[in-house]
Amino acid sequence: MSGLITLTTDFGLEDSYVGQVKGAILAVDPGLTIVDLCHHVAPQDVRGGAYILETGYAAFPAGTIHVAVVDPGVGTERRMLAVQAGGHRFLAPDNGLVGRVLERATPFVAHAIQNRAFFGPRASATFAARDIFGPVAAWIARGVELERLGPAVTDLVGLPAERPRLELGRAVRVPVVAIDRFGNVVLDVTVEALTALLGHPPDGRSFLHLVAEGGEASRFVRTYGDAVGREPALLVNSAGYLEVAVASGRADVALGVRVGMHPALRVGR
Amino acid sequence: MSGLITLTTDFGLEDSYVGQVKGAILAVDPGLTIVDLCHHVAPQDVRGGAYILETGYAAFPAGTIHVAVVDPGVGTERRMLAVQAGGHRFLAPDNGLVGRVLERATPFVAHAIQNRAFFGPRASATFAARDIFGPVAAWIARGVELERLGPAVTDLVGLPAERPRLELGRAVRVPVVAIDRFGNVVLDVTVEALTALLGHPPDGRSFLHLVAEGGEASRFVRTYGDAVGREPALLVNSAGYLEVAVASGRADVALGVRVGMHPALRVGR
Amino acid sequence: MSGLITLTTDFGLEDSYVGQVKGAILAVDPGLTIVDLCHHVAPQDVRGGAYILETGYAAFPAGTIHVAVVDPGVGTERRMLAVQAGGHRFLAPDNGLVGRVLERATPFVAHAIQNRAFFGPRASATFAARDIFGPVAAWIARGVELERLGPAVTDLVGLPAERPRLELGRAVRVPVVAIDRFGNVVLDVTVEALTALLGHPPDGRSFLHLVAEGGEASRFVRTYGDAVGREPALLVNSAGYLEVAVASGRADVALGVRVGMHPALRVGR
Repeated sequence: MSGLITLTTDFGLEDSYVGQVKGAILAVDPGLTIVDLCHHVAPQDVRGGAYILETGYAAFPAGTIHVAVVDPGVGTERRMLAVQAGGHRFLAPDNGLVGRVLERATPFVAHAIQNRAFFGPRASATFAARDIFGPVAAWIARGVELERLGPAVTDLVGLPAERPRLELGRAVRVPVVAIDRFGNVVLDVTVEALTALLGHPPDGRSFLHLVAEGGEASRFVRTYGDAVGREPALLVNSAGYLEVAVASGRADVALGVRVGMHPALRVGR
Repeated sequence: MSGLITLTTDFGLEDSYVGQVKGAILAVDPGLTIVDLCHHVAPQDVRGGAYILETGYAAFPAGTIHVAVVDPGVGTERRMLAVQAGGHRFLAPDNGLVGRVLERATPFVAHAIQNRAFFGPRASATFAARDIFGPVAAWIARGVELERLGPAVTDLVGLPAERPRLELGRAVRVPVVAIDRFGNVVLDVTVEALTALLGHPPDGRSFLHLVAEGGEASRFVRTYGDAVGREPALLVNSAGYLEVAVASGRADVALGVRVGMHPALRVGR
Repeated sequence: MSGLITLTTDFGLEDSYVGQVKGAILAVDPGLTIVDLCHHVAPQDVRGGAYILETGYAAFPAGTIHVAVVDPGVGTERRMLAVQAGGHRFLAPDNGLVGRVLERATPFVAHAIQNRAFFGPRASATFAARDIFGPVAAWIARGVELERLGPAVTDLVGLPAERPRLELGRAVRVPVVAIDRFGNVVLDVTVEALTALLGHPPDGRSFLHLVAEGGEASRFVRTYGDAVGREPALLVNSAGYLEVAVASGRADVALGVRVGMHPALRVGR
């Protein structure tokens, strides 16, 4: 049992939405600890939310309950899930949001959230995070087993888009999955995929060449401090993804890319 | 007694203001729990803050202490209030910020905050949230009764603006009270007011017609998932207010409205 | 011993970086309390971060541990510090970030952070806040003494820039160190410096004259509520710094200044 709940949403902080979800959790048990993982997923960007959840949850102790709500189908018949995987628990709509977590953390057990005994006192058609996900998370933190929430399910909705399949020596289109506050550009390419392709982890001698509309990157470095000047450099970020950074500037500007664009990456040869 | 304090301000998060308020609370008692309700009320927008407070506080358990500071008169002779209403406590400058809460949560008991024994150690002229409201909230959470703060008062400053009075079959100007991160437009019209006018809660067969500078809305739906394409749809939001949403876009853009503007709403006939 | 940790970074809240740091702290001890002091320091703006830390930390109770990460040299050989000063503890890269704190809170004791026994389980080259600073802070909160982290050091890297030296009756260039959400412009001039120059704290009869590219300010007021209309007014802010505010508008716009610019200030005569 853990008293720790994280929140990942596309709600932003301009409104009281996030605060209300916390209130609904603390109304079940005021002794729980709630941590914001991220509330700035782009509105309704399930893929971006899946990236945040996958790359963020493992910093928390085992037993943590992660509530993720990027939910274009709120109020309609879409399923709501409670999933146990990798020693953590995840609550999310069944739209692919937990898909990236489950790629890495298998096996998993998933239940549909149906038992109204664990819902909150309010029942709006538009705010499942406050009325359902938050209170259910609090009850799980208090020891309620996932099987009490609803039937086990296995046919989860998949990721909103497939990952790119890299090929040695050929340019392949790879999606920009995130851009952070520093303008660093995260590509949907893992260090594991690069290692499998190259036969070893990428390093300064590896050939990687990224071509985007506005610029290119081909220098591989170990950390931001090793990048120099305005030249875009490639590195493996703290989440294990390929990233482009510019020491004195923004890589997104240097490359002319936004989230969802597909620059071309050539690895090796 | 409750150890839970929420904060609602127009401070934003760019600076350390909110952090300092939390420090001042925890300096009184490090065991208290503090939750952000919202810090992105538009600067000095008392009406918007009143909406956030009214629609957010009830998600929290009874006994919660809500500190709200949107305070154009900070440092001047304006009164500071501690109010008990609806099982919650509210601390705010006496400028209408708690006005919307008190419309719904009556009766109330209010005291002026004057007893310096419960103020913090610092006494700037510009930061009452840190120097006064925060520490006083912490003392209340520790069990201090409101009557120890100062004399009872009843002549509270009213809401910064009256709500619109709807009339059946006639176009009435209604204020835009909030726009959220998704571009959803909240009108200062409650489901209770609509229900009183129509004789029943609004539904898909109800006639509602909103005309703004840049667009119109007349389709009433139950939830965001029922809106389609780029057509603005009307619905009752999770706070019980009439809202305009666009499924694949932003309603504020579709209607051409900002907070404080007054589109025309016609209900019925 | 204190279970309270604050965080000051330039990470922003768009990503999960801050959440991951909190996860790494709570993975050491889920009972710790974490408070955000500020995450919106401008990217890599060590001077701005130093201002936030200096003016924010003292609101917290003695014994609080303040983690500050604005770290252009992350992953390189730059030192990491744990500092005891003024009853508080500070963890930061050795780049001047704690410099302003130490100007006021002397004497101090500083240790280099080297002992990997207190690092987290992950070891990326780009995320010392999650992998090192956060876990180390948690261990300190649990009672680990600073001398166990690494050797004592005294030759700390200085502030990124010197403060201006004011002269009575002469215009001196003073840096804009911060601009808050209200557009208030903070100058790198303390009330102590003004008091020393004038022989008494500045008040309505003091002569102060600020000239910036886009405008001027010469009226000294006690609090925001005493400023009138669109005229920029000077005041001492809640952190003890000279600030320019406009009652119904933004001082940064009125003066035409941004952070890092140097308007000319004349004090006295």
